[in-house]
Amino acid sequence: MPLFDLPLSQLRSYTSEVTPPGDLKAFWDATLDEARAFPLDATFEPVDNYLTVIDTFDVTFSGFGGAPVKGWLHLPANREAGVRLPVVVNYIGYSGGRGLANQDTRWAQAGYAHLIMDTRGQGYGGTLGDTADPHPSAGDVAHAGLMTRGIASREDYYYRRVYVDAFRAVEAAQAHPAVDPAKVVLAGVSQGGGLVVATAGLTAGRLDGVIAALPDVPFLQDFPRAIDITPRGPYPEIAQFLARHRDRYDAALGVLNYFDGVNLARWATVPALYSAAQMDDICPPSTVCASYNAYGTGTHASSATGAVKDIEVYRFNNHEGGQEHHWIRQLQFLRKLLG
Amino acid sequence: MPLFDLPLSQLRSYTSEVTPPGDLKAFWDATLDEARAFPLDATFEPVDNYLTVIDTFDVTFSGFGGAPVKGWLHLPANREAGVRLPVVVNYIGYSGGRGLANQDTRWAQAGYAHLIMDTRGQGYGGTLGDTADPHPSAGDVAHAGLMTRGIASREDYYYRRVYVDAFRAVEAAQAHPAVDPAKVVLAGVSQGGGLVVATAGLTAGRLDGVIAALPDVPFLQDFPRAIDITPRGPYPEIAQFLARHRDRYDAALGVLNYFDGVNLARWATVPALYSAAQMDDICPPSTVCASYNAYGTGTHASSATGAVKDIEVYRFNNHEGGQEHHWIRQLQFLRKLLG
Amino acid sequence: MPLFDLPLSQLRSYTSEVTPPGDLKAFWDATLDEARAFPLDATFEPVDNYLTVIDTFDVTFSGFGGAPVKGWLHLPANREAGVRLPVVVNYIGYSGGRGLANQDTRWAQAGYAHLIMDTRGQGYGGTLGDTADPHPSAGDVAHAGLMTRGIASREDYYYRRVYVDAFRAVEAAQAHPAVDPAKVVLAGVSQGGGLVVATAGLTAGRLDGVIAALPDVPFLQDFPRAIDITPRGPYPEIAQFLARHRDRYDAALGVLNYFDGVNLARWATVPALYSAAQMDDICPPSTVCASYNAYGTGTHASSATGAVKDIEVYRFNNHEGGQEHHWIRQLQFLRKLLG
Amino acid sequence: MPLFDLPLSQLRSYTSEVTPPGDLKAFWDATLDEARAFPLDATFEPVDNYLTVIDTFDVTFSGFGGAPVKGWLHLPANREAGVRLPVVVNYIGYSGGRGLANQDTRWAQAGYAHLIMDTRGQGYGGTLGDTADPHPSAGDVAHAGLMTRGIASREDYYYRRVYVDAFRAVEAAQAHPAVDPAKVVLAGVSQGGGLVVATAGLTAGRLDGVIAALPDVPFLQDFPRAIDITPRGPYPEIAQFLARHRDRYDAALGVLNYFDGVNLARWATVPALYSAAQMDDICPPSTVCASYNAYGTGTHASSATGAVKDIEVYRFNNHEGGQEHHWIRQLQFLRKLLG
Amino acid sequence: MPLFDLPLSQLRSYTSEVTPPGDLKAFWDATLDEARAFPLDATFEPVDNYLTVIDTFDVTFSGFGGAPVKGWLHLPANREAGVRLPVVVNYIGYSGGRGLANQDTRWAQAGYAHLIMDTRGQGYGGTLGDTADPHPSAGDVAHAGLMTRGIASREDYYYRRVYVDAFRAVEAAQAHPAVDPAKVVLAGVSQGGGLVVATAGLTAGRLDGVIAALPDVPFLQDFPRAIDITPRGPYPEIAQFLARHRDRYDAALGVLNYFDGVNLARWATVPALYSAAQMDDICPPSTVCASYNAYGTGTHASSATGAVKDIEVYRFNNHEGGQEHHWIRQLQFLRKLLG
Amino acid sequence: MPLFDLPLSQLRSYTSEVTPPGDLKAFWDATLDEARAFPLDATFEPVDNYLTVIDTFDVTFSGFGGAPVKGWLHLPANREAGVRLPVVVNYIGYSGGRGLANQDTRWAQAGYAHLIMDTRGQGYGGTLGDTADPHPSAGDVAHAGLMTRGIASREDYYYRRVYVDAFRAVEAAQAHPAVDPAKVVLAGVSQGGGLVVATAGLTAGRLDGVIAALPDVPFLQDFPRAIDITPRGPYPEIAQFLARHRDRYDAALGVLNYFDGVNLARWATVPALYSAAQMDDICPPSTVCASYNAYGTGTHASSATGAVKDIEVYRFNNHEGGQEHHWIRQLQFLRKLLG
Repeated sequence: MPLFDLPLSQLRSYTSEVTPPGDLKAFWDATLDEARAFPLDATFEPVDNYLTVIDTFDVTFSGFGGAPVKGWLHLPANREAGVRLPVVVNYIGYSGGRGLANQDTRWAQAGYAHLIMDTRGQGYGGTLGDTADPHPSAGDVAHAGLMTRGIASREDYYYRRVYVDAFRAVEAAQAHPAVDPAKVVLAGVSQGGGLVVATAGLTAGRLDGVIAALPDVPFLQDFPRAIDITPRGPYPEIAQFLARHRDRYDAALGVLNYFDGVNLARWATVPALYSAAQMDDICPPSTVCASYNAYGTGTHASSATGAVKDIEVYRFNNHEGGQEHHWIRQLQFLRKLLG
Repeated sequence: MPLFDLPLSQLRSYTSEVTPPGDLKAFWDATLDEARAFPLDATFEPVDNYLTVIDTFDVTFSGFGGAPVKGWLHLPANREAGVRLPVVVNYIGYSGGRGLANQDTRWAQAGYAHLIMDTRGQGYGGTLGDTADPHPSAGDVAHAGLMTRGIASREDYYYRRVYVDAFRAVEAAQAHPAVDPAKVVLAGVSQGGGLVVATAGLTAGRLDGVIAALPDVPFLQDFPRAIDITPRGPYPEIAQFLARHRDRYDAALGVLNYFDGVNLARWATVPALYSAAQMDDICPPSTVCASYNAYGTGTHASSATGAVKDIEVYRFNNHEGGQEHHWIRQLQFLRKLLG
Repeated sequence: MPLFDLPLSQLRSYTSEVTPPGDLKAFWDATLDEARAFPLDATFEPVDNYLTVIDTFDVTFSGFGGAPVKGWLHLPANREAGVRLPVVVNYIGYSGGRGLANQDTRWAQAGYAHLIMDTRGQGYGGTLGDTADPHPSAGDVAHAGLMTRGIASREDYYYRRVYVDAFRAVEAAQAHPAVDPAKVVLAGVSQGGGLVVATAGLTAGRLDGVIAALPDVPFLQDFPRAIDITPRGPYPEIAQFLARHRDRYDAALGVLNYFDGVNLARWATVPALYSAAQMDDICPPSTVCASYNAYGTGTHASSATGAVKDIEVYRFNNHEGGQEHHWIRQLQFLRKLLG
Repeated sequence: MPLFDLPLSQLRSYTSEVTPPGDLKAFWDATLDEARAFPLDATFEPVDNYLTVIDTFDVTFSGFGGAPVKGWLHLPANREAGVRLPVVVNYIGYSGGRGLANQDTRWAQAGYAHLIMDTRGQGYGGTLGDTADPHPSAGDVAHAGLMTRGIASREDYYYRRVYVDAFRAVEAAQAHPAVDPAKVVLAGVSQGGGLVVATAGLTAGRLDGVIAALPDVPFLQDFPRAIDITPRGPYPEIAQFLARHRDRYDAALGVLNYFDGVNLARWATVPALYSAAQMDDICPPSTVCASYNAYGTGTHASSATGAVKDIEVYRFNNHEGGQEHHWIRQLQFLRKLLG
Repeated sequence: MPLFDLPLSQLRSYTSEVTPPGDLKAFWDATLDEARAFPLDATFEPVDNYLTVIDTFDVTFSGFGGAPVKGWLHLPANREAGVRLPVVVNYIGYSGGRGLANQDTRWAQAGYAHLIMDTRGQGYGGTLGDTADPHPSAGDVAHAGLMTRGIASREDYYYRRVYVDAFRAVEAAQAHPAVDPAKVVLAGVSQGGGLVVATAGLTAGRLDGVIAALPDVPFLQDFPRAIDITPRGPYPEIAQFLARHRDRYDAALGVLNYFDGVNLARWATVPALYSAAQMDDICPPSTVCASYNAYGTGTHASSATGAVKDIEVYRFNNHEGGQEHHWIRQLQFLRKLLG
Repeated sequence: MPLFDLPLSQLRSYTSEVTPPGDLKAFWDATLDEARAFPLDATFEPVDNYLTVIDTFDVTFSGFGGAPVKGWLHLPANREAGVRLPVVVNYIGYSGGRGLANQDTRWAQAGYAHLIMDTRGQGYGGTLGDTADPHPSAGDVAHAGLMTRGIASREDYYYRRVYVDAFRAVEAAQAHPAVDPAKVVLAGVSQGGGLVVATAGLTAGRLDGVIAALPDVPFLQDFPRAIDITPRGPYPEIAQFLARHRDRYDAALGVLNYFDGVNLARWATVPALYSAAQMDDICPPSTVCASYNAYGTGTHASSATGAVKDIEVYRFNNHEGGQEHHWIRQLQFLRKLLG
């Protein structure tokens, strides 16, 4: 894959043409108020994970519409009783699910509480999932995949439910006695990175405790550009839907605008470490940089001076991005942040 | 695409290893009884189709669970008042929908009433669709596409709902005053052909009026072989789902067995004209021949002596099959049948 | 297929660098005079099309060099005796032919006379053809396909013959007693669209009766740019021929210049409705817009003030363009034009 | 490309199901009598080939229908005056032509006269060609490429003309004063190999002087099997033509049967060295072995005891076959044969 | 990927045609004697792995020719002082290396000592490597990749060095004070699985302490069949080398025979759990089953009664095989074995 | 392949951003001094090439580190005794080797002495090779292929050895008694062209006798741009290596800078004929033009006024470039140069 997006110098300063809808805040206030009216009901059942150094709990909490969302909570087995650990809330890439109970314990190995959230209706791809998306709109006519599910209205759009789940996953993590609720780190790759951006924006001013955001090659950023230039992966689901539904471009983009990470990133206030990959043809670097450049620049109440942020651009990588190397970068970032 | 399936001589006699579950009839009796308890509520609204020789009506009727299913009814504009026409009930290929109001009027041009049924939840592919699949299981974890929707149980499996819709579409066609309810022909290509087979089998002994079945390169036949050998199209959705869900092979095949055209074809009693294509790598010819060879051979009450049947095998064609040439074959077949 | 051609804003104003050869008019005057010296000999034999609402006639007329060219004429079966219908002369996409007698009757269903012209030497691809190209140059060394047949001279170039056929097809349509010779509409997709453009230009000032042109994603426009940027479809036949014949670029482009739709479009005077598709990598949108922007701007005698024209650009479509949706647009355009 | 055809042990004994038409000999007697009634008119014009060790002549002779066919004749520059050299008549692979005057002199470097025959209507692919196929049937409807040109009748089929050209090329070679007319070797790769087989068969009993045949991975052998199993190259042109012309299978195979190398090979009487490649998916090894196993087994008058023959099977090669290694094998074979 | 190899029933009993060279034992006796004459020099340097629950050591030991081979040793951080842990010696898939210090700690999380061996000259693919292959033959002419490095002689063949490294990695693991030298488990996927098979065979009767072998979709088994049927991955490197070096088939296969897992598996005596994937087109299931069926059947001194063995065949999986699911199977297998 | 690089007008003036390292001359002085300290030991053994007009010698000489490098020397068989011929030193494209003894004699046919140099460690691709690369660094971790072999340091980098070999091949050619040492022409395609550029630069001021350089679509030019934009061929080996070794970009580019043809071309002083192909996606035209535009512009002692140079740009060609047509251009160029 040769370079196909903007050169690095232009990426550094690229800003999206996306502008937030006037009622963006009202929409999310209403959405989150409604969602949080359901009791969280977070439960943590211990499971046999075949591991001696990690304890794993089967997590269930109430997501959008009060529906159960699954997850895993991993804790170091040799943690000191009574000590509360900082927690990494971890979102998953597109098509995957929480996987098996011992499949990814990386943050717990590093001494953090590690909560992995299942993505509703996914888990048919890279890793298994156990959470349905029991919303009436799930059966609407949509392009194969999840990207156009419910796209007929902002209320029904699939990611409205997922963003709410992601928000409540933070609350769920905070609800466990081994977790320090004032030290929540958001982390995820691709779609997981998009959920990090959204949650960092949506929790700002609404939920305390989030202290850092680690969006890795995030998806769901700068939709109008993404669907024009992206040849592979989930963005083309939208383009293909619009190829068939030729008269729905304005309406669909209008809906997507409520979920565009570029708009939500503006609200974020916590320190962030992004990554982008310059040959990424699934989440093109310009869409990631659009998000990065918008991050923390909004006028949202709690965001006075803008957020501390940094970005690592991997030059010859496609969507795999920085992989294990970037994890080290993140570990170093958190080590510094948490002292 | 070179030949990859059985040679023609073996196709002629190939029979599937599929055997019907013991309670197949009970399952479908219960399913159809429950479905037909809903009032049909078939409505036919005239629409402007820009055509002078065809009248078109926007059709709505109650499908599975009483949910509305859309369709078009085309009639020759110059039909004689009071004369009832034989009707072709037409099912659609995978991913497509009923399309626009004047998009396919072929059978009406030939003097038939022509009812096109939308396929619930589809219509994102070749042609537009307007019918949702508002079932709670639509949001379950499934491989992208419809093939594994609800596959966790025979009650929730997606095609249970579609087969019921297809059955009721016959009743809807019979409900229009311009239609002769004793002359219903079933026609469709690929998934549409699969619905022809299923409906021919399910109506036998349960609903009068069906007089012919025209399954063109039918899909949904001989699942166990199909998912093993098919490299392209919707069958691999199931294979890919099972690649991820390694422990669900027996359960999934058990569910699919209730929907395998090979099992339902056995019940059919009306004359049938099949088509197959020898280089078809979406609906391989052996799976089609498995259905053809089973057609009308069942011990179901109303199928005493087996059905009149014929098959056209297109030698160098892939899934396009016989196309316009086969339509001529079908027109000749019906001309002969209807006198 | 992501966007690869100019952005929409630049497409709107893009003009080709193609300039017409000085003797373009003289070349076509001579060509058409010579062709029209042959008697037209248009015949219309009724055929059994299995349809009750459409009558179909097997058409033969004298094309280039007096050679027979085939076609179909479809008429609404219930037309009033003695009434003359406006006619749509319909040209075919590359590789296809007129097809079977009942394969495409769309314009006749809408109340028009509908004449489909076979393309000489084609009909091996999408639809069957029945017209040979019996010219001595057909056996010259050329790249597989028709695009470089006879490219050694403007006199022998394949499209000289086809453009003449297309011109005479209008005369043939006008020769049928059910057709109103003063109401000829030209329609076609891809190569068919290219023939619409050429015929609109060539008939201007030479043959009365053409009243509208409907070129859909037209091919054969802006050759120099097309062969540089087009990755798929017939344009690369020329690029591949020139890859082998490295010394024939200037000569070949010199010949093609007599057939470039951009040059012929300038002469057109009748109202036109174009379509383009922004992700079309067979007939890239810039080549279509080059034609659209040139359309009717020439100094040819009968083109004083420029033609009424409009273009629909389909944003997420490849070469399929607007399909059934664009047909509705065309039906509306004609309804308005014809009152 | 893994193995896809028969295993080696079965290849060794594989015989085609092709059986010659009853009038095969009569057809070729008539065809060749008619062709040879034209004066040969072989001319040899010296050209500047920029080489000091090879002399090259631009060859023209009368092929089928008396039409001019081009070629090159290469001779060692330092040949002794008055000595007549054995000659290699060399046929070209599909799509290529004779190329430039100094492009392939290999046999002349080895001390042979080397005549390369252009293939009419080809030369748009690998190497340039200069010979047209000025037959009226060249403009008939056919699949892109040459394989289905004129396939409507055995008289018009393209390879009837090419086989005649190949026959007359032997006569042309024999006509040059530097050539020993009693020592003609036939050589060629792929289509060139097919022409070797055909010419070895057709000259047997009709033209003296041919002493060896070197068909390399020959094309045009065992058509019925070839069009069923071959995924790449020119054979699929026939399959694709028949995919569109569904009703012409028997007729087309009937025509091809007059040109199938398997039938003509039976007549051959001279020693032959074949090559095949076991992973060849353009000219599958079974089709080559079908020819090899038939070679020289016919009851044709001059073929009493069968021909001396050998075959080299290259195990891991695709259609490139043995390349330079096989040339060494051929040089050794001829060294032995010619003493 | 549809099924392309033998059906399951035939896989169960498939045995390779490979037969061991007569001096196989002598060859490996000499090779290992020579290698083990070098002092092992295993060193274990602690590194900062950013993890709190795992301790990691940078391992170096003397492999083939005494050259340094790198690895990681992971231990549970909270292990009891003085307790010796069973150890899993883990080999890597083709092209990958040992990776970063905290990249794969899975077996240590489960309470085992976990030694990962770098593969010399690899580590340019999936994961980074740090071990060179400083052998003179590394610069010989070979197909890109490692498969044909040194294939000119059994002494120089690349895998001779790697197999020795793998043997010595067991000794290195046994040398660490936290490891129980009597409880060594061999584990690896693909090439790693091939090294498991080889090491299980080579250690039998030569080195005590190995108690189980876990070859996952093992590579390097049944070379003659593998290079004939495998379309993807490293086996085709050999086929492509032989396509060019047409005269070296017998010699190359003769060399490979000393390294074929099928031959070495016969010697193995310890319990084994294999996995295969039925749609695996990189390490086809028949080649894996050939190894499985040969495992422990040899007449080698210490293999009297054959080994306990089991195999899991994943039906719809390609080379990913059982992944995390199979790890659970392995954990259960070891739990049972180790009590 | 449509155009993807700069348009022709920009190619004409494109200059690379590459700037030579300050010690470039010192590095090459030291490298060549060290290499030339080894005795050349050029030997020429006659071989049976089966040709009557060409004599061929098996060449061996001491390349980098004194290691033996193979080659062929072809001479016209009928050369006059005692006359010394101008010689073409011919380098090979990537992956190929010197081939068989009679495989490519083209320049000898044209009356030149023709020396073909084997490329160490290659010869596994298009043509066979017989020269190893016996350097300790050959076994280092590197991406499959040769491009990143030894890239850890400029001393170990693979092309340091190859450039030295290419330099010494000139000396070897000059050592043969039939060669005029004052008339050495350098020629090669792709990698061969890159070696022409390098040798033209490195011999300038260091070795007399080179009189012309004929780099055909040269590889190894303008590395930074090449690895960013090239989708196919060997350049991506570097990009893929850097995708894995994310922290080595600066170091690797620093090493490559000593080998970039753009830097070495500056030193060249002899007349040059380049070729480029505008649709070349293996050696993109901008990288070739960067070299061409730099050629002979350096301040190196012997390059006072710049070199005579010309370039042929093939417009519709991919990496095949001008092929036989360009050879004619080269023959004409030399005819003119040599009088």
